[in-house]
Amino acid sequence: MNEIKIFSPATVANVSCGFDVLGFCLDTIGDEMVIRKTNEKGIKITKIVGADLPFETGKNVASVSALALYNDAKPDCGFEIEIYKNIKPGSGIGSSSASAAGSVFAINHLLGNPYNATQLTGFAMKGEAVASGCEHADNIAPALFGGFTLVKSTSPLQVLQLPTPKDLYVTIIHPQIEVKTSEARAILPQDIPLQNAITQWSNVGSLVHALHTNDYNLISLSLNDVVVEPYRSQLIPHFDLVKTEVLKAGALGAGISGSGPSIFALSKSKTTAETVAKAMTQVFTNTTIAFNTYVSKINTQGMKIIS
Amino acid sequence: MNEIKIFSPATVANVSCGFDVLGFCLDTIGDEMVIRKTNEKGIKITKIVGADLPFETGKNVASVSALALYNDAKPDCGFEIEIYKNIKPGSGIGSSSASAAGSVFAINHLLGNPYNATQLTGFAMKGEAVASGCEHADNIAPALFGGFTLVKSTSPLQVLQLPTPKDLYVTIIHPQIEVKTSEARAILPQDIPLQNAITQWSNVGSLVHALHTNDYNLISLSLNDVVVEPYRSQLIPHFDLVKTEVLKAGALGAGISGSGPSIFALSKSKTTAETVAKAMTQVFTNTTIAFNTYVSKINTQGMKIIS
Repeated sequence: MNEIKIFSPATVANVSCGFDVLGFCLDTIGDEMVIRKTNEKGIKITKIVGADLPFETGKNVASVSALALYNDAKPDCGFEIEIYKNIKPGSGIGSSSASAAGSVFAINHLLGNPYNATQLTGFAMKGEAVASGCEHADNIAPALFGGFTLVKSTSPLQVLQLPTPKDLYVTIIHPQIEVKTSEARAILPQDIPLQNAITQWSNVGSLVHALHTNDYNLISLSLNDVVVEPYRSQLIPHFDLVKTEVLKAGALGAGISGSGPSIFALSKSKTTAETVAKAMTQVFTNTTIAFNTYVSKINTQGMKIIS
Repeated sequence: MNEIKIFSPATVANVSCGFDVLGFCLDTIGDEMVIRKTNEKGIKITKIVGADLPFETGKNVASVSALALYNDAKPDCGFEIEIYKNIKPGSGIGSSSASAAGSVFAINHLLGNPYNATQLTGFAMKGEAVASGCEHADNIAPALFGGFTLVKSTSPLQVLQLPTPKDLYVTIIHPQIEVKTSEARAILPQDIPLQNAITQWSNVGSLVHALHTNDYNLISLSLNDVVVEPYRSQLIPHFDLVKTEVLKAGALGAGISGSGPSIFALSKSKTTAETVAKAMTQVFTNTTIAFNTYVSKINTQGMKIIS
């Protein structure tokens, strides 16, 4: 096998209560990538469609992560990468992670899968660092593992795969405004009230328990963020109204996807998730802000091989 | 049935990472209580053995919680309570909770069990408030539900029963020094670094996952408290040495039980838990501080009816 075409999924990080540690994988939103063995050694980006991203190997997240794997594996060949972006950079649904994780997944496959998903996450984090300035795994892990993931620690890297209740669907709205990850980080306080931290870890614990017990009501009660959302929601116009409306429409809960501006909602069925999409659309239709909405089930597989 | 004798278990609250929300129930350490129907209405404490505690109905945690249930149930009789304390007040293993939870469990049984465990927890919290100044459930919930519990919220009260891996054993050492709950609370900062909070909720999430998946190694990695232990351990002489020695002896992890001064350790087998007890004993044998050690499996039943 000398060439592989993959689907590299978008992901939602944080999941309300689980700032910096929780994430889940989307099914119908993602990039495509073609990776090809070459006789010439090294990593080359040969094509980028759908976004204005750098071709330099040291600057593109996909090639930086690929290079991390490549330098470890030291194969007898090189690789060229074509990227077909469908996930808009800066949307808050793991655009850079999809690129960083996609290239290492594909190259690993072409090499006969010498690395496991945790090791691939480690390589992909090197790419993610180019985009966000530090090595995060909360979008990369769900893209590579699928389903819900908890990044227990990044040093040493430990990713937990959480179970995914089968009727869980996601609705996303991406209002096309710019929220820089650096700005979204800077708005957060260095210190938080202990009482809020207790509320947050109670919610993380109960969300993990709810995923294990298929308890949709408890998922709903756990999707609550008293630490980050009060700050970051200020950067997203109409956030509070969207949240109110999607809960009215039957969503289990809603929150900021990653560092925003996308907003995610979880629902118990596809029908409800579609009603929730209408409610989200309704809010932004009355504004001057362009937007996209998506409905997806949780993707428990992660990366997919197209051909 | 006019009289019941029960075993009311000691409990460990916080469980390292789960400050204020996690707890588990002990099996071989606990009080006994006898509760008897009386023709005379009201709640009366008639006997207290093993500790110097108030007999006034409004001042003893067992009668205060009993009265909360009694005023709600409005039965045609009264109840008298005998308390045989084995759990030393101020030991940090849920002495007041055992009394507060025991009386409501027993009276509920004599009334034909009109209340569920969550409702009983609510009544018992009224008693606990007499001892600690505020309504906590992190010791009461494991005493009434058994096993591991997560208090998702106190208002409205919601208790989650977590699974208990079957080979899990507890070792406790109670160094007989006084650590007042109020002092243990006062030493904690109002605000904590966001980074530490993230570490803590990652550990809470992974501990819950570990309990669901019987992953003893992950239990070990999750029993880590970067928020409370650095402060409270200063109040417990030789805490760091105990922790070092029990980990050397094979414990999965160790931490402060409740607000101390007791220290708990979790181990994968009874044999290891006994080795851990020896290691704890060794540390305090070389000091002037009196102490008790206990080894117990996790009690998944909670309260037990003796007769």
